[in-house]
Amino acid sequence: MIIENQTGNIKLKHLTIIGVGLIGGSLAAAVKKANPAVKIVGCGRNEANLQKAVDLGVIDHYETDIQTAVSWAEIVVVAVPLGAMRNVFTSMLAGLPDNAVVTDVGSAKGSVVNEVRETMGDLFSRFVPAHPIAGSEKSSVLHARSDLYHDRYVILTPMDSTSDSAVEQVKSMWALTGARISIMDVVKHDEVLAATSHLPHVLAYALVDTLANMDESEEIFQYAAGGFKDFTRIAASDPEMWRDICVSNSNAIIDVLDRFNQEIDQVRSEIASGNGELLMELFTRVKAIREKL
Amino acid sequence: MIIENQTGNIKLKHLTIIGVGLIGGSLAAAVKKANPAVKIVGCGRNEANLQKAVDLGVIDHYETDIQTAVSWAEIVVVAVPLGAMRNVFTSMLAGLPDNAVVTDVGSAKGSVVNEVRETMGDLFSRFVPAHPIAGSEKSSVLHARSDLYHDRYVILTPMDSTSDSAVEQVKSMWALTGARISIMDVVKHDEVLAATSHLPHVLAYALVDTLANMDESEEIFQYAAGGFKDFTRIAASDPEMWRDICVSNSNAIIDVLDRFNQEIDQVRSEIASGNGELLMELFTRVKAIREKL
Repeated sequence: MIIENQTGNIKLKHLTIIGVGLIGGSLAAAVKKANPAVKIVGCGRNEANLQKAVDLGVIDHYETDIQTAVSWAEIVVVAVPLGAMRNVFTSMLAGLPDNAVVTDVGSAKGSVVNEVRETMGDLFSRFVPAHPIAGSEKSSVLHARSDLYHDRYVILTPMDSTSDSAVEQVKSMWALTGARISIMDVVKHDEVLAATSHLPHVLAYALVDTLANMDESEEIFQYAAGGFKDFTRIAASDPEMWRDICVSNSNAIIDVLDRFNQEIDQVRSEIASGNGELLMELFTRVKAIREKL
Repeated sequence: MIIENQTGNIKLKHLTIIGVGLIGGSLAAAVKKANPAVKIVGCGRNEANLQKAVDLGVIDHYETDIQTAVSWAEIVVVAVPLGAMRNVFTSMLAGLPDNAVVTDVGSAKGSVVNEVRETMGDLFSRFVPAHPIAGSEKSSVLHARSDLYHDRYVILTPMDSTSDSAVEQVKSMWALTGARISIMDVVKHDEVLAATSHLPHVLAYALVDTLANMDESEEIFQYAAGGFKDFTRIAASDPEMWRDICVSNSNAIIDVLDRFNQEIDQVRSEIASGNGELLMELFTRVKAIREKL
Protein backbone atom coordinates (compact mmCIF):
# COMPACT_ATOMS: atom_id res chain seq x y z
CA MET A 1 0.00 0.00 0.00
CA ILE A 2 1.38 3.36 -1.06
CA ILE A 3 0.12 6.68 0.20
CA GLU A 4 0.56 9.66 -2.04
CA ASN A 5 -0.52 13.19 -1.57
CA GLN A 6 0.42 15.20 -4.56
CA THR A 7 -1.51 17.91 -6.31
CA GLY A 8 0.10 17.19 -9.69
CA ASN A 9 -0.70 19.32 -12.70
CA ILE A 10 -4.38 20.01 -12.64
CA LYS A 11 -5.68 20.29 -16.17
CA LEU A 12 -9.22 19.14 -15.44
CA LYS A 13 -11.76 21.18 -17.40
CA HIS A 14 -14.84 19.02 -17.73
CA LEU A 15 -16.16 16.65 -15.10
CA THR A 16 -19.33 14.58 -15.22
CA ILE A 17 -20.85 13.14 -12.08
CA ILE A 18 -23.43 10.37 -12.41
CA GLY A 19 -25.45 10.31 -9.20
CA VAL A 20 -25.46 13.64 -7.38
CA GLY A 21 -26.08 12.63 -3.79
CA LEU A 22 -23.96 13.25 -0.69
CA ILE A 23 -20.83 11.62 -2.13
CA GLY A 24 -21.04 12.83 -5.73
CA GLY A 25 -22.33 16.24 -4.65
CA SER A 26 -19.58 16.75 -2.08
CA LEU A 27 -16.94 15.82 -4.67
CA ALA A 28 -18.45 18.34 -7.10
CA ALA A 29 -18.58 21.02 -4.41
CA ALA A 30 -14.95 20.40 -3.42
CA VAL A 31 -13.66 20.46 -7.02
CA LYS A 32 -15.67 23.61 -7.72
CA LYS A 33 -14.28 25.33 -4.63
CA ALA A 34 -10.67 24.41 -5.45
CA ASN A 35 -11.01 25.25 -9.13
CA PRO A 36 -14.10 27.24 -10.12
CA ALA A 37 -13.13 26.98 -13.81
CA VAL A 38 -13.95 23.25 -13.96
CA LYS A 39 -17.32 22.71 -15.65
CA ILE A 40 -19.33 20.09 -13.81
CA VAL A 41 -22.28 18.26 -15.31
CA GLY A 42 -24.56 16.17 -13.12
CA CYS A 43 -26.65 13.28 -14.30
CA GLY A 44 -29.24 11.17 -12.52
CA ARG A 45 -32.78 9.83 -12.55
CA ASN A 46 -34.34 12.44 -10.28
CA GLU A 47 -34.62 15.76 -12.09
CA ALA A 48 -35.79 17.68 -8.99
CA ASN A 49 -32.68 16.52 -7.18
CA LEU A 50 -30.45 17.60 -10.07
CA GLN A 51 -32.12 21.01 -10.14
CA LYS A 52 -31.43 21.34 -6.39
CA ALA A 53 -27.76 20.57 -7.06
CA VAL A 54 -27.69 23.37 -9.66
CA ASP A 55 -29.49 25.76 -7.29
CA LEU A 56 -26.97 24.96 -4.56
CA GLY A 57 -24.11 25.71 -6.96
CA VAL A 58 -22.79 22.16 -6.59
CA ILE A 59 -22.95 21.44 -10.34
CA ASP A 60 -23.06 23.80 -13.33
CA HIS A 61 -25.85 22.07 -15.16
CA TYR A 62 -27.47 18.70 -15.52
CA GLU A 63 -28.44 16.22 -18.19
CA THR A 64 -30.92 13.41 -17.78
CA ASP A 65 -29.58 11.53 -20.81
CA ILE A 66 -26.45 9.74 -19.69
CA GLN A 67 -24.75 9.60 -23.10
CA THR A 68 -25.15 13.36 -23.50
CA ALA A 69 -23.90 13.89 -19.94
CA VAL A 70 -20.64 12.01 -20.51
CA SER A 71 -20.06 13.16 -24.12
CA TRP A 72 -17.65 16.00 -23.30
CA ALA A 73 -16.14 14.73 -20.01
CA GLU A 74 -12.45 14.18 -19.31
CA ILE A 75 -13.42 12.35 -16.12
CA VAL A 76 -16.70 10.60 -15.41
CA VAL A 77 -17.37 9.82 -11.75
CA VAL A 78 -19.98 7.12 -11.15
CA ALA A 79 -21.46 7.88 -7.71
CA VAL A 80 -24.56 5.70 -7.73
CA PRO A 81 -25.31 2.79 -5.36
CA LEU A 82 -23.32 -0.36 -6.17
CA GLY A 83 -26.44 -2.14 -7.41
CA ALA A 84 -27.03 0.52 -10.09
CA MET A 85 -23.47 0.61 -11.45
CA ARG A 86 -23.65 -2.12 -14.09
CA ASN A 87 -26.54 -0.38 -15.78
CA VAL A 88 -24.73 2.98 -15.68
CA PHE A 89 -21.57 1.53 -17.25
CA THR A 90 -23.56 -0.12 -20.03
CA SER A 91 -25.73 2.92 -20.74
CA MET A 92 -22.99 5.51 -20.97
CA LEU A 93 -20.60 3.48 -23.12
CA ALA A 94 -21.72 4.76 -26.53
CA GLY A 95 -21.43 8.39 -25.39
CA LEU A 96 -17.94 8.26 -23.88
CA PRO A 97 -15.18 10.28 -25.60
CA ASP A 98 -12.12 8.24 -26.58
CA ASN A 99 -9.83 9.56 -23.90
CA ALA A 100 -12.30 9.83 -21.06
CA VAL A 101 -11.32 8.38 -17.73
CA VAL A 102 -14.04 6.66 -15.70
CA THR A 103 -13.91 6.24 -11.94
CA ASP A 104 -16.36 5.40 -9.17
CA VAL A 105 -16.83 5.83 -5.43
CA GLY A 106 -18.21 2.40 -4.46
CA SER A 107 -17.59 1.00 -0.99
CA ALA A 108 -16.70 -2.41 -2.48
CA LYS A 109 -14.27 -2.67 -5.38
CA GLY A 110 -14.10 -6.29 -6.59
CA SER A 111 -17.70 -6.33 -7.80
CA VAL A 112 -17.33 -2.99 -9.62
CA VAL A 113 -14.12 -4.09 -11.33
CA ASN A 114 -15.87 -7.24 -12.56
CA GLU A 115 -18.81 -5.28 -13.90
CA VAL A 116 -16.57 -2.84 -15.74
CA ARG A 117 -14.56 -5.72 -17.17
CA GLU A 118 -17.75 -7.34 -18.41
CA THR A 119 -19.39 -4.22 -19.82
CA MET A 120 -16.76 -1.76 -20.99
CA GLY A 121 -14.44 -3.81 -23.20
CA ASP A 122 -11.33 -1.87 -24.25
CA LEU A 123 -12.27 0.98 -21.94
CA PHE A 124 -11.41 -1.23 -18.95
CA SER A 125 -7.88 0.19 -18.92
CA ARG A 126 -9.29 3.72 -18.51
CA PHE A 127 -11.35 2.77 -15.46
CA VAL A 128 -9.84 3.68 -12.07
CA PRO A 129 -11.69 2.05 -9.14
CA ALA A 130 -11.82 4.45 -6.19
CA HIS A 131 -13.34 4.63 -2.73
CA PRO A 132 -13.40 7.78 -0.61
CA ILE A 133 -13.57 6.77 3.08
CA ALA A 134 -16.03 9.44 4.09
CA GLY A 135 -19.73 9.80 4.40
CA SER A 136 -22.54 10.37 6.80
CA GLU A 137 -25.91 8.92 7.71
CA LYS A 138 -27.37 11.84 5.76
CA SER A 139 -27.48 10.84 2.12
CA SER A 140 -28.59 13.65 -0.16
CA VAL A 141 -27.08 16.52 -2.11
CA LEU A 142 -28.74 18.76 0.48
CA HIS A 143 -26.01 17.65 2.90
CA ALA A 144 -23.15 17.91 0.36
CA ARG A 145 -20.10 19.67 1.81
CA SER A 146 -16.98 20.84 0.02
CA ASP A 147 -14.89 19.74 3.03
CA LEU A 148 -16.28 16.18 3.31
CA TYR A 149 -13.05 14.65 1.97
CA HIS A 150 -10.58 17.01 3.57
CA ASP A 151 -7.87 14.94 5.24
CA ARG A 152 -9.86 11.73 4.66
CA TYR A 153 -8.47 8.76 2.74
CA VAL A 154 -9.40 7.99 -0.85
CA ILE A 155 -8.30 4.48 -1.78
CA LEU A 156 -7.58 3.77 -5.45
CA THR A 157 -7.37 0.12 -6.52
CA PRO A 158 -5.95 0.14 -10.07
CA MET A 159 -5.32 -3.18 -11.84
CA ASP A 160 -2.15 -4.14 -13.74
CA SER A 161 -3.92 -3.19 -16.94
CA THR A 162 -5.06 0.21 -15.70
CA SER A 163 -3.52 3.13 -17.58
CA ASP A 164 -1.02 5.07 -15.49
CA SER A 165 -2.20 8.37 -16.91
CA ALA A 166 -5.81 7.54 -15.98
CA VAL A 167 -4.67 6.90 -12.40
CA GLU A 168 -2.79 10.21 -12.40
CA GLN A 169 -5.86 12.07 -13.62
CA VAL A 170 -8.07 10.59 -10.91
CA LYS A 171 -5.42 11.32 -8.27
CA SER A 172 -5.25 14.93 -9.43
CA MET A 173 -9.01 15.26 -9.18
CA TRP A 174 -9.11 13.90 -5.62
CA ALA A 175 -6.13 16.06 -4.65
CA LEU A 176 -8.39 19.07 -5.26
CA THR A 177 -10.60 17.91 -2.35
CA GLY A 178 -7.78 17.82 0.20
CA ALA A 179 -8.06 14.03 0.49
CA ARG A 180 -5.15 11.68 1.27
CA ILE A 181 -4.72 9.25 -1.59
CA SER A 182 -3.79 5.59 -1.05
CA ILE A 183 -3.17 2.82 -3.56
CA MET A 184 -4.32 -0.65 -2.52
CA ASP A 185 -4.93 -4.06 -4.04
CA VAL A 186 -8.62 -4.67 -4.87
CA VAL A 187 -8.93 -7.82 -2.76
CA LYS A 188 -7.19 -6.25 0.21
CA HIS A 189 -9.42 -3.18 -0.05
CA ASP A 190 -12.52 -5.35 0.15
CA GLU A 191 -11.16 -7.31 3.13
CA VAL A 192 -10.13 -4.17 5.01
CA LEU A 193 -13.43 -2.41 4.38
CA ALA A 194 -15.43 -5.51 5.28
CA ALA A 195 -13.67 -5.39 8.64
CA THR A 196 -13.68 -1.66 9.41
CA SER A 197 -16.98 -0.63 7.93
CA HIS A 198 -19.22 -3.34 6.51
CA LEU A 199 -19.21 -5.75 9.46
CA PRO A 200 -19.67 -2.97 12.07
CA HIS A 201 -22.71 -1.75 10.15
CA VAL A 202 -24.15 -5.27 9.89
CA LEU A 203 -23.67 -5.78 13.64
CA ALA A 204 -25.31 -2.44 14.38
CA TYR A 205 -28.33 -3.18 12.20
CA ALA A 206 -28.71 -6.65 13.74
CA LEU A 207 -28.36 -5.33 17.29
CA VAL A 208 -30.95 -2.57 16.90
CA ASP A 209 -33.36 -5.01 15.28
CA THR A 210 -32.79 -7.62 18.02
CA LEU A 211 -33.50 -5.14 20.80
CA ALA A 212 -36.52 -3.69 19.01
CA ASN A 213 -38.07 -7.16 19.07
CA MET A 214 -37.67 -7.65 22.84
CA ASP A 215 -40.51 -7.26 25.33
CA GLU A 216 -38.56 -4.52 27.09
CA SER A 217 -37.95 -2.56 23.86
CA GLU A 218 -39.63 0.56 25.17
CA GLU A 219 -37.31 0.82 28.18
CA ILE A 220 -34.36 -0.31 26.08
CA PHE A 221 -34.68 2.61 23.72
CA GLN A 222 -35.55 5.00 26.53
CA TYR A 223 -32.39 4.19 28.46
CA ALA A 224 -30.16 3.84 25.41
CA ALA A 225 -26.89 5.33 26.54
CA GLY A 226 -23.26 5.36 25.51
CA GLY A 227 -22.57 2.22 23.53
CA PHE A 228 -25.99 1.55 22.15
CA LYS A 229 -26.58 5.12 21.00
CA ASP A 230 -23.55 4.83 18.72
CA PHE A 231 -24.96 1.59 17.33
CA THR A 232 -28.32 3.17 16.53
CA ARG A 233 -26.62 6.12 14.84
CA ILE A 234 -24.68 3.78 12.56
CA ALA A 235 -27.87 1.87 11.82
CA ALA A 236 -29.55 5.01 10.49
CA SER A 237 -27.52 4.80 7.28
CA ASP A 238 -29.09 4.43 3.83
CA PRO A 239 -30.69 0.96 3.49
CA GLU A 240 -30.22 0.68 -0.29
CA MET A 241 -26.52 1.49 -0.03
CA TRP A 242 -26.00 -1.10 2.69
CA ARG A 243 -28.01 -3.79 0.92
CA ASP A 244 -25.82 -3.28 -2.15
CA ILE A 245 -22.62 -3.39 -0.10
CA CYS A 246 -23.69 -6.65 1.58
CA VAL A 247 -24.51 -8.21 -1.79
CA SER A 248 -21.40 -6.85 -3.57
CA ASN A 249 -18.86 -7.69 -0.88
CA SER A 250 -20.52 -10.76 0.58
CA ASN A 251 -17.47 -13.05 0.58
CA ALA A 252 -15.24 -10.69 2.52
CA ILE A 253 -18.04 -9.78 4.93
CA ILE A 254 -18.87 -13.43 5.61
CA ASP A 255 -15.18 -14.17 6.17
CA VAL A 256 -14.74 -11.49 8.84
CA LEU A 257 -18.17 -12.21 10.34
CA ASP A 258 -17.13 -15.83 10.83
CA ARG A 259 -13.96 -14.75 12.61
CA PHE A 260 -16.02 -12.45 14.79
CA ASN A 261 -18.50 -15.25 15.55
CA GLN A 262 -15.66 -17.50 16.69
CA GLU A 263 -14.49 -14.84 19.09
CA ILE A 264 -18.02 -14.17 20.32
CA ASP A 265 -18.48 -17.91 20.99
CA GLN A 266 -15.33 -17.81 23.10
CA VAL A 267 -16.43 -14.70 24.99
CA ARG A 268 -19.89 -16.19 25.48
CA SER A 269 -18.45 -19.24 27.18
CA GLU A 270 -16.25 -17.07 29.41
CA ILE A 271 -19.27 -15.01 30.46
CA ALA A 272 -21.45 -18.10 30.95
CA SER A 273 -18.82 -19.78 33.14
CA GLY A 274 -17.97 -16.56 34.99
CA ASN A 275 -14.34 -16.72 33.88
CA GLY A 276 -13.34 -13.27 35.08
CA GLU A 277 -9.66 -13.86 34.48
CA LEU A 278 -9.96 -14.49 30.74
CA LEU A 279 -12.45 -11.63 30.37
CA MET A 280 -10.05 -9.31 32.17
CA GLU A 281 -7.26 -10.41 29.79
CA LEU A 282 -9.44 -9.71 26.77
CA PHE A 283 -10.65 -6.29 27.93
CA THR A 284 -7.15 -5.23 28.98
CA ARG A 285 -5.68 -6.34 25.64
CA VAL A 286 -8.35 -4.44 23.70
CA LYS A 287 -7.97 -1.27 25.74
CA ALA A 288 -4.23 -1.35 25.00
CA ILE A 289 -4.93 -1.77 21.27
CA ARG A 290 -7.25 1.20 21.34
CA GLU A 291 -4.77 3.35 23.20
CA LYS A 292 -2.07 2.61 20.62
CA LEU A 293 -4.29 4.08 17.89
CA MET B 1 -41.57 1.82 35.60
CA ILE B 2 -42.22 5.17 37.25
CA ILE B 3 -40.25 8.30 36.53
CA GLU B 4 -40.07 10.88 39.23
CA ASN B 5 -38.27 14.14 39.33
CA GLN B 6 -38.79 15.79 42.62
CA THR B 7 -36.33 17.68 44.71
CA GLY B 8 -38.11 16.83 47.97
CA ASN B 9 -36.90 18.26 51.24
CA ILE B 10 -33.15 18.12 51.24
CA LYS B 11 -31.89 17.58 54.73
CA LEU B 12 -28.69 15.80 53.82
CA LYS B 13 -25.80 16.89 56.02
CA HIS B 14 -23.28 14.06 55.96
CA LEU B 15 -22.48 11.92 52.97
CA THR B 16 -19.84 9.19 52.72
CA ILE B 17 -18.62 7.97 49.36
CA ILE B 18 -16.74 4.67 49.21
CA GLY B 19 -14.71 4.67 45.99
CA VAL B 20 -13.93 8.16 44.73
CA GLY B 21 -13.51 7.60 40.98
CA LEU B 22 -15.34 9.17 38.08
CA ILE B 23 -18.79 8.07 39.29
CA GLY B 24 -18.39 8.63 43.03
CA GLY B 25 -16.35 11.78 42.49
CA SER B 26 -18.87 13.30 40.09
CA LEU B 27 -21.70 12.58 42.53
CA ALA B 28 -19.72 14.28 45.31
CA ALA B 29 -18.94 17.27 43.07
CA ALA B 30 -22.60 17.63 42.05
CA VAL B 31 -23.92 17.40 45.63
CA LYS B 32 -21.27 19.87 46.78
CA LYS B 33 -22.18 22.32 44.03
CA ALA B 34 -25.92 22.13 44.78
CA ASN B 35 -25.47 22.26 48.51
CA PRO B 36 -22.03 23.32 49.76
CA ALA B 37 -23.12 22.72 53.38
CA VAL B 38 -23.14 18.93 52.92
CA LYS B 39 -20.02 17.40 54.46
CA ILE B 40 -18.60 14.72 52.18
CA VAL B 41 -16.15 12.07 53.34
CA GLY B 42 -14.35 9.91 50.82
CA CYS B 43 -12.98 6.46 51.47
CA GLY B 44 -10.88 4.12 49.34
CA ARG B 45 -7.73 2.05 49.09
CA ASN B 46 -5.61 4.58 47.25
CA GLU B 47 -4.63 7.44 49.54
CA ALA B 48 -2.99 9.50 46.77
CA ASN B 49 -6.24 9.36 44.84
CA LEU B 50 -8.24 10.43 47.91
CA GLN B 51 -5.86 13.35 48.49
CA LYS B 52 -6.39 14.41 44.86
CA ALA B 53 -10.14 14.37 45.47
CA VAL B 54 -9.65 16.66 48.47
CA ASP B 55 -7.32 18.94 46.47
CA LEU B 56 -9.91 19.17 43.68
CA GLY B 57 -12.56 20.13 46.24
CA VAL B 58 -14.62 17.08 45.32
CA ILE B 59 -14.70 15.78 48.91
CA ASP B 60 -14.12 17.54 52.23
CA HIS B 61 -11.82 14.97 53.70
CA TYR B 62 -11.00 11.30 53.53
CA GLU B 63 -10.68 8.28 55.76
CA THR B 64 -8.87 5.09 54.86
CA ASP B 65 -10.65 3.12 57.56
CA ILE B 66 -14.07 2.25 56.24
CA GLN B 67 -15.83 1.95 59.62
CA THR B 68 -14.62 5.41 60.59
CA ALA B 69 -15.64 6.77 57.19
CA VAL B 70 -19.25 5.61 57.51
CA SER B 71 -19.61 6.28 61.24
CA TRP B 72 -21.33 9.64 60.94
CA ALA B 73 -23.00 9.31 57.53
CA GLU B 74 -26.70 9.70 56.82
CA ILE B 75 -26.12 8.23 53.36
CA VAL B 76 -23.29 5.92 52.33
CA VAL B 77 -22.75 5.58 48.58
CA VAL B 78 -20.79 2.51 47.51
CA ALA B 79 -19.13 3.45 44.21
CA VAL B 80 -16.59 0.64 43.84
CA PRO B 81 -16.45 -1.95 41.01
CA LEU B 82 -19.10 -4.66 41.35
CA GLY B 83 -16.48 -7.25 42.23
CA ALA B 84 -15.36 -5.26 45.29
CA MET B 85 -18.84 -4.60 46.71
CA ARG B 86 -19.33 -7.67 48.90
CA ASN B 87 -16.16 -6.90 50.77
CA VAL B 88 -17.17 -3.26 51.25
CA PHE B 89 -20.60 -4.20 52.62
CA THR B 90 -19.10 -6.65 55.06
CA SER B 91 -16.31 -4.34 56.22
CA MET B 92 -18.40 -1.27 56.89
CA LEU B 93 -21.22 -3.02 58.73
CA ALA B 94 -19.91 -2.57 62.29
CA GLY B 95 -19.36 1.17 61.73
CA LEU B 96 -22.78 2.07 60.28
CA PRO B 97 -25.03 4.34 62.36
CA ASP B 98 -28.50 2.92 63.06
CA ASN B 99 -30.39 5.11 60.64
CA ALA B 100 -27.86 5.28 57.85
CA VAL B 101 -29.07 4.62 54.33
CA VAL B 102 -26.77 2.67 52.04
CA THR B 103 -26.91 2.88 48.26
CA ASP B 104 -24.68 1.96 45.36
CA VAL B 105 -24.04 2.87 41.71
CA GLY B 106 -23.45 -0.59 40.20
CA SER B 107 -24.28 -1.26 36.55
CA ALA B 108 -25.94 -4.57 37.50
CA LYS B 109 -28.42 -4.74 40.35
CA GLY B 110 -29.40 -8.38 40.99
CA SER B 111 -25.93 -9.39 42.12
CA VAL B 112 -25.60 -6.40 44.44
CA VAL B 113 -29.00 -7.01 46.01
CA ASN B 114 -28.02 -10.62 46.70
CA GLU B 115 -24.74 -9.59 48.28
CA VAL B 116 -26.41 -7.04 50.53
CA ARG B 117 -29.07 -9.58 51.52
CA GLU B 118 -26.33 -12.05 52.43
CA THR B 119 -24.06 -9.64 54.29
CA MET B 120 -26.11 -6.87 55.88
CA GLY B 121 -28.87 -8.68 57.79
CA ASP B 122 -31.51 -6.29 59.17
CA LEU B 123 -29.89 -3.39 57.34
CA PHE B 124 -31.14 -4.84 54.05
CA SER B 125 -34.28 -2.68 54.30
CA ARG B 126 -32.12 0.45 54.42
CA PHE B 127 -30.24 -0.43 51.23
CA VAL B 128 -31.46 1.30 48.04
CA PRO B 129 -29.97 -0.19 44.86
CA ALA B 130 -29.25 2.54 42.33
CA HIS B 131 -27.66 2.92 38.93
CA PRO B 132 -26.87 6.28 37.32
CA ILE B 133 -26.84 5.85 33.52
CA ALA B 134 -23.84 8.03 32.90
CA GLY B 135 -20.13 7.61 32.59
CA SER B 136 -17.24 7.88 30.26
CA GLU B 137 -14.26 5.85 29.07
CA LYS B 138 -12.22 8.05 31.43
CA SER B 139 -12.39 6.51 34.84
CA SER B 140 -10.74 8.61 37.54
CA VAL B 141 -11.63 11.39 39.95
CA LEU B 142 -9.45 13.60 37.69
CA HIS B 143 -12.33 13.51 35.20
CA ALA B 144 -15.09 14.01 37.79
CA ARG B 145 -17.65 16.60 36.68
CA SER B 146 -20.46 18.13 38.70
CA ASP B 147 -22.70 18.01 35.60
CA LEU B 148 -22.12 14.35 34.73
CA TYR B 149 -25.62 13.36 35.87
CA HIS B 150 -27.48 16.45 34.70
CA ASP B 151 -30.55 15.30 32.78
CA ARG B 152 -29.33 11.68 32.82
CA TYR B 153 -31.37 8.83 34.25
CA VAL B 154 -30.71 7.32 37.65
CA ILE B 155 -32.58 4.05 38.04
CA LEU B 156 -33.51 2.95 41.57
CA THR B 157 -34.55 -0.68 42.05
CA PRO B 158 -35.99 -0.91 45.58
CA MET B 159 -37.38 -4.25 46.80
CA ASP B 160 -40.72 -4.77 48.58
CA SER B 161 -38.86 -4.75 51.87
CA THR B 162 -36.94 -1.54 51.17
CA SER B 163 -37.84 1.31 53.51
CA ASP B 164 -39.81 4.08 51.79
CA SER B 165 -37.96 6.75 53.70
CA ALA B 166 -34.62 5.30 52.59
CA VAL B 167 -35.79 5.49 48.99
CA GLU B 168 -36.88 9.10 49.53
CA GLN B 169 -33.50 10.03 50.98
CA VAL B 170 -31.61 8.53 48.02
CA LYS B 171 -33.99 10.24 45.58
CA SER B 172 -33.38 13.58 47.30
CA MET B 173 -29.64 13.10 47.04
CA TRP B 174 -29.78 12.33 43.31
CA ALA B 175 -32.19 15.21 42.74
CA LEU B 176 -29.32 17.51 43.78
CA THR B 177 -27.39 16.36 40.70
CA GLY B 178 -30.11 17.28 38.20
CA ALA B 179 -30.67 13.63 37.29
CA ARG B 180 -34.01 12.17 36.24
CA ILE B 181 -35.01 9.46 38.67
CA SER B 182 -36.72 6.22 37.58
CA ILE B 183 -37.98 3.29 39.62
CA MET B 184 -37.61 -0.13 38.03
CA ASP B 185 -37.79 -3.79 38.98
CA VAL B 186 -34.35 -5.33 39.66
CA VAL B 187 -34.71 -8.09 37.07
CA LYS B 188 -36.01 -5.73 34.43
CA HIS B 189 -33.14 -3.32 35.11
CA ASP B 190 -30.61 -6.06 34.53
CA GLU B 191 -32.30 -7.17 31.30
CA VAL B 192 -32.59 -3.62 29.95
CA LEU B 193 -28.99 -2.76 30.79
CA ALA B 194 -27.70 -6.05 29.38
CA ALA B 195 -29.34 -5.01 26.10
CA THR B 196 -28.48 -1.30 25.93
CA SER B 197 -25.07 -1.27 27.50
CA HIS B 198 -23.51 -4.61 28.44
CA LEU B 199 -24.00 -6.46 25.14
CA PRO B 200 -22.89 -3.48 22.99
CA HIS B 201 -19.68 -3.29 25.03
CA VAL B 202 -19.06 -7.03 24.71
CA LEU B 203 -19.60 -6.83 20.94
CA ALA B 204 -17.24 -3.86 20.69
CA TYR B 205 -14.49 -5.60 22.67
CA ALA B 206 -14.87 -8.77 20.59
CA LEU B 207 -14.84 -6.86 17.31
CA VAL B 208 -11.73 -4.85 18.09
CA ASP B 209 -9.94 -8.00 19.25
CA THR B 210 -11.02 -9.95 16.15
CA LEU B 211 -9.73 -7.29 13.78
CA ALA B 212 -6.49 -6.83 15.72
CA ASN B 213 -5.75 -10.51 15.08
CA MET B 214 -6.19 -10.30 11.32
CA ASP B 215 -3.28 -10.16 8.85
CA GLU B 216 -4.55 -6.81 7.59
CA SER B 217 -4.78 -5.31 11.08
CA GLU B 218 -2.42 -2.46 10.26
CA GLU B 219 -4.57 -1.24 7.37
CA ILE B 220 -7.73 -1.99 9.32
CA PHE B 221 -6.80 0.37 12.09
CA GLN B 222 -5.37 2.93 9.68
CA TYR B 223 -8.61 3.15 7.70
CA ALA B 224 -10.90 2.82 10.70
CA ALA B 225 -13.74 5.16 9.88
CA GLY B 226 -17.29 5.84 10.97
CA GLY B 227 -18.70 2.66 12.44
CA PHE B 228 -15.54 1.03 13.66
CA LYS B 229 -14.18 4.16 15.33
CA ASP B 230 -17.24 4.22 17.58
CA PHE B 231 -16.60 0.55 18.44
CA THR B 232 -13.00 1.21 19.42
CA ARG B 233 -14.04 4.16 21.58
CA ILE B 234 -16.51 1.96 23.48
CA ALA B 235 -13.83 -0.70 23.87
CA ALA B 236 -11.52 1.75 25.65
CA SER B 237 -13.61 1.50 28.83
CA ASP B 238 -12.23 0.25 32.13
CA PRO B 239 -11.44 -3.51 31.89
CA GLU B 240 -12.03 -4.25 35.58
CA MET B 241 -15.44 -2.62 35.53
CA TRP B 242 -16.48 -4.56 32.44
CA ARG B 243 -15.15 -7.87 33.73
CA ASP B 244 -17.23 -7.37 36.87
CA ILE B 245 -20.33 -6.44 34.87
CA CYS B 246 -19.99 -9.56 32.70
CA VAL B 247 -19.60 -11.77 35.76
CA SER B 248 -22.36 -10.05 37.78
CA ASN B 249 -24.97 -9.88 35.05
CA SER B 250 -24.00 -12.97 33.09
CA ASN B 251 -27.49 -14.50 32.79
CA ALA B 252 -29.10 -11.42 31.29
CA ILE B 253 -26.11 -10.80 28.99
CA ILE B 254 -26.12 -14.39 27.73
CA ASP B 255 -29.86 -14.19 27.12
CA VAL B 256 -29.65 -11.09 24.94
CA LEU B 257 -26.44 -12.30 23.28
CA ASP B 258 -28.25 -15.49 22.23
CA ARG B 259 -31.07 -13.46 20.71
CA PHE B 260 -28.50 -11.37 18.87
CA ASN B 261 -26.70 -14.49 17.63
CA GLN B 262 -29.95 -15.85 16.22
CA GLU B 263 -30.46 -12.64 14.29
CA ILE B 264 -26.84 -12.59 13.10
CA ASP B 265 -27.21 -16.18 11.85
CA GLN B 266 -30.22 -15.06 9.86
CA VAL B 267 -28.42 -12.02 8.45
CA ARG B 268 -25.38 -14.15 7.67
CA SER B 269 -27.43 -16.49 5.52
CA GLU B 270 -29.05 -13.55 3.72
CA ILE B 271 -25.64 -12.07 2.94
CA ALA B 272 -24.19 -15.46 1.93
CA SER B 273 -27.08 -16.14 -0.44
CA GLY B 274 -27.16 -12.55 -1.73
CA ASN B 275 -30.76 -12.09 -0.62
CA GLY B 276 -30.96 -8.35 -1.24
CA GLU B 277 -34.69 -8.21 -0.67
CA LEU B 278 -34.58 -9.46 2.93
CA LEU B 279 -31.53 -7.32 3.69
CA MET B 280 -33.33 -4.26 2.33
CA GLU B 281 -36.33 -5.08 4.55
CA LEU B 282 -34.10 -5.38 7.62
CA PHE B 283 -32.14 -2.18 6.97
CA THR B 284 -35.30 -0.21 6.18
CA ARG B 285 -37.04 -1.48 9.31
CA VAL B 286 -34.05 -0.56 11.48
CA LYS B 287 -33.68 2.91 9.97
CA ALA B 288 -37.36 3.54 10.77
CA ILE B 289 -36.83 2.39 14.37
CA ARG B 290 -33.90 4.74 14.72
CA GLU B 291 -35.81 7.67 13.26
CA LYS B 292 -38.64 7.14 15.74
CA LEU B 293 -36.20 7.64 18.63
